[in-house]
Amino acid sequence: MSEKCILVGQSGGPTAAINSSLAGVIAAGIEAGVRVEGMRYGIQGFLDGRSVRLDEAFANPVDLELLRNTPSSWLGSCRYKLPSPADDEATYQHLFRRFKEIGAAAVLYIGGNDSMDTIAKLGAFGREYGSDIRFIGVPKTIDNDLVATDHTPGYGSAGRFVATAMNEIAYDADVYDLKSVTFVEIMGRDAGWLAASCSLALARPDIVLLPEVPLDEKALIDRIAQLLEQKNTVMVGVSEGVRTPDGTLVCERAATGVGTDEFGHLATLSGAGRYLASLAKEQLGCKTRAVELSTLQRCASYVASQTDLDEAFELGRTGVRAALAGETTKMCALERVADDPYEVRTKLVDVLAVANQVKHVPREWISEDGLDVTDELMAYMRPLVGELPAQLASIG
Amino acid sequence: MSEKCILVGQSGGPTAAINSSLAGVIAAGIEAGVRVEGMRYGIQGFLDGRSVRLDEAFANPVDLELLRNTPSSWLGSCRYKLPSPADDEATYQHLFRRFKEIGAAAVLYIGGNDSMDTIAKLGAFGREYGSDIRFIGVPKTIDNDLVATDHTPGYGSAGRFVATAMNEIAYDADVYDLKSVTFVEIMGRDAGWLAASCSLALARPDIVLLPEVPLDEKALIDRIAQLLEQKNTVMVGVSEGVRTPDGTLVCERAATGVGTDEFGHLATLSGAGRYLASLAKEQLGCKTRAVELSTLQRCASYVASQTDLDEAFELGRTGVRAALAGETTKMCALERVADDPYEVRTKLVDVLAVANQVKHVPREWISEDGLDVTDELMAYMRPLVGELPAQLASIG
Repeated sequence: MSEKCILVGQSGGPTAAINSSLAGVIAAGIEAGVRVEGMRYGIQGFLDGRSVRLDEAFANPVDLELLRNTPSSWLGSCRYKLPSPADDEATYQHLFRRFKEIGAAAVLYIGGNDSMDTIAKLGAFGREYGSDIRFIGVPKTIDNDLVATDHTPGYGSAGRFVATAMNEIAYDADVYDLKSVTFVEIMGRDAGWLAASCSLALARPDIVLLPEVPLDEKALIDRIAQLLEQKNTVMVGVSEGVRTPDGTLVCERAATGVGTDEFGHLATLSGAGRYLASLAKEQLGCKTRAVELSTLQRCASYVASQTDLDEAFELGRTGVRAALAGETTKMCALERVADDPYEVRTKLVDVLAVANQVKHVPREWISEDGLDVTDELMAYMRPLVGELPAQLASIG
Repeated sequence: MSEKCILVGQSGGPTAAINSSLAGVIAAGIEAGVRVEGMRYGIQGFLDGRSVRLDEAFANPVDLELLRNTPSSWLGSCRYKLPSPADDEATYQHLFRRFKEIGAAAVLYIGGNDSMDTIAKLGAFGREYGSDIRFIGVPKTIDNDLVATDHTPGYGSAGRFVATAMNEIAYDADVYDLKSVTFVEIMGRDAGWLAASCSLALARPDIVLLPEVPLDEKALIDRIAQLLEQKNTVMVGVSEGVRTPDGTLVCERAATGVGTDEFGHLATLSGAGRYLASLAKEQLGCKTRAVELSTLQRCASYVASQTDLDEAFELGRTGVRAALAGETTKMCALERVADDPYEVRTKLVDVLAVANQVKHVPREWISEDGLDVTDELMAYMRPLVGELPAQLASIG
């Protein structure tokens, strides 16, 4: 094959929007009359010789439209951190041989932190090696923890699921005439963005615990006790990454959080909600419950944010256009122009400024007592998640 | 108050459709020019003197429309099993005094098994007591385990959530190039209806385990091993009520299923999925995962089935019309006329035939090996759950 192509891969955990970015890449490639090749299972599968011709597979616009609304990574993904060239130059030689074989004029990688690290490393090696292949990163992560962009595709849809689920669990929790506290555990690792989105629920939770503020168990229990004097049902959103003042993950305190399962295998990191539900029951004597939102947070496409899907698509197109214009080692990013009416524009940022950084929720966007989010954070999140379906408020 | 009224209550666990039935009762009351009163927190709250005037609260049709789409029990609920009159006549005397005070011409109770038991007991006592109050049951349960009706409002919406979630978890599970088995745990107690609905997912699960068939662990593991030779990702739907051949609940085998939490409290009954994931990991050595769909199964209104909401509304209206026509100790029920195109009509059945019975999935609607559902069951469920959003099939 002599004709040049755009080569695209998906990496890291799935989201509801990562296929929309892939659709944007394919659409822009088709528009530009360029062949588009996809890596199966990311860089790792591509190293094993696996790729798929995308401009042909998606010649029918109906399929491209379906792809925009399909969750997870259609090409497959990997969790592969590229070694540094100093440690393993052979892998780079192999990769660049494969790039040449397939005729890659540009490599686009859709992913989070590690993917931007991959783009940065490939760009640096290519420059040294005298390659003219362009390397562009297209961001995605439900955690919204990438720097240098206002927000990250995948976040708005995950946040929309979290806000919707929080609302419905709150309605569910308020059914009986008794005092109860419900803890809803939300993903996001060390960043509180996703957990914060639960506050957008029509039935706004009373308390939100983010990893950015060390958990003060006594203050939490006191606040819950105070709330229970005024109302039956207390709702608490809990980030899975919440830590105690000494830096210990709260989930490590849960019997089933980190530890072993029935057969002695190490279980996944979860349980902050369960631990706090047990603590509250112990100290307050009322009914408590823990709900884990689990996998659906990252893959629930039936409640995807249209803004998120549209922006993801647009960033995929931006990546192709940037590459064709000769840009390299850049990440496509979003710059917010205004909150209301919401306006955003795409831009390119240096991928080196993004790789291996984590963007936390600013302390000033969390209430002073650390138990709620501020109006600024609400205004930031609202347009990304979109308007939620109208429902009747609780009888109260 | 001398004018007669329709008195309505909601009981048992919330669903996405129980408020639609309430809306049907209110609408029919308003249409008939009858006052409608609601029990707060079911019979229990009503005994404590708590009620709300519904025809006035919902005079605006916009609110009634919102109520149709609001999950959970808007009036509040209770889990109160009425004693038998022989054991506690005083409670009945108290209740019938309260019925008289509020001017109840008819009492409608929206709920599951226990609610039909309540209606049966009240009807029997009323007859003996010489009361002319009519007692009508309006069914709801996500478990779909009520007899004498083709299906029960609440089931279609819960099934739609389960099928959608199963689909999205399947997409999520298939992302990496490795062998894995995912167990999705689904509610339904001793009936497999809700668990079976996961088979409607576009990405249909490979195996479904229902409580109606005793679990054969060896056959299950052998089947999974066979599937893993053909494909990367095996998906298994598991009913929470699955039992071993000796009648033990599988969830009792999970360390965290029945047992104690971090503080020594008895935990809720769950864990069949976790147990089986551990078993499969132990025996097959591949990656396994357990996902509990949890509370969202009964309250996820954003993915409600329109057929379910419409039928729930219609049964609420049917209840009022039946009461006004002089019927008593009846349950409003659905009779299926045809699967495709789907057609259903409402009817009245003797509430005594329903109370305290459980409708199981017929054995002939489960495959011979007990590991899947049949086409008959698929045809039964499909119109209740409704058409699911189109997505792109896996790259395969």
